[in-house]
Amino acid sequence: MTTPFPVNKALDIIGGKWRPQVYCTLEDGPRRFSEIQRAIPDVSRKVLTDQLRELEQLGMVRRIDYSTEKQLHVEYSLTEEALSLQPAMKALCSWGETRDE
Amino acid sequence: MTTPFPVNKALDIIGGKWRPQVYCTLEDGPRRFSEIQRAIPDVSRKVLTDQLRELEQLGMVRRIDYSTEKQLHVEYSLTEEALSLQPAMKALCSWGETRDE
Repeated sequence: MTTPFPVNKALDIIGGKWRPQVYCTLEDGPRRFSEIQRAIPDVSRKVLTDQLRELEQLGMVRRIDYSTEKQLHVEYSLTEEALSLQPAMKALCSWGETRDE
Repeated sequence: MTTPFPVNKALDIIGGKWRPQVYCTLEDGPRRFSEIQRAIPDVSRKVLTDQLRELEQLGMVRRIDYSTEKQLHVEYSLTEEALSLQPAMKALCSWGETRDE
């Protein structure tokens, strides 16, 4: 198997319908599941759960459980690895904004 | 239908297995079909033909036919629109290079 092309390696991780939106939602800091879901109205609970788990396994998202006996409190945030992708995401975002339909 | 997310708009155009490689092959200047095919050994003739046609329809690639009666000579090059995506592609490329398997 030839080594995957570097751009493809990045797109395999951050491509797809939902990951860019999850990424941009977490760019401004840690969020709870319900906050992420509110920011991406079209995504279902199950799909968002799967995407967050995959991004966690890929080392892109950190999941921290602050829950107490009384209260469930889990937060998701971007890892340093993910934050180092910010220049590319910002460039893709501004380029995408200039594209008319 | 909600307006597509800007990053997704960009990824719809430049994502996928072959487009990043076609893009990077044309980054250094116009190329003939055979040169592109040589630069991407795994791609079939048909897939490369389709990808170039789609990129042309998307306004990302320009196809210029210099053929004469004696000789077939067609060149492909990136449009200004495509070149404006270079910062994003370079950032994706360098990030992808840092990703170990």
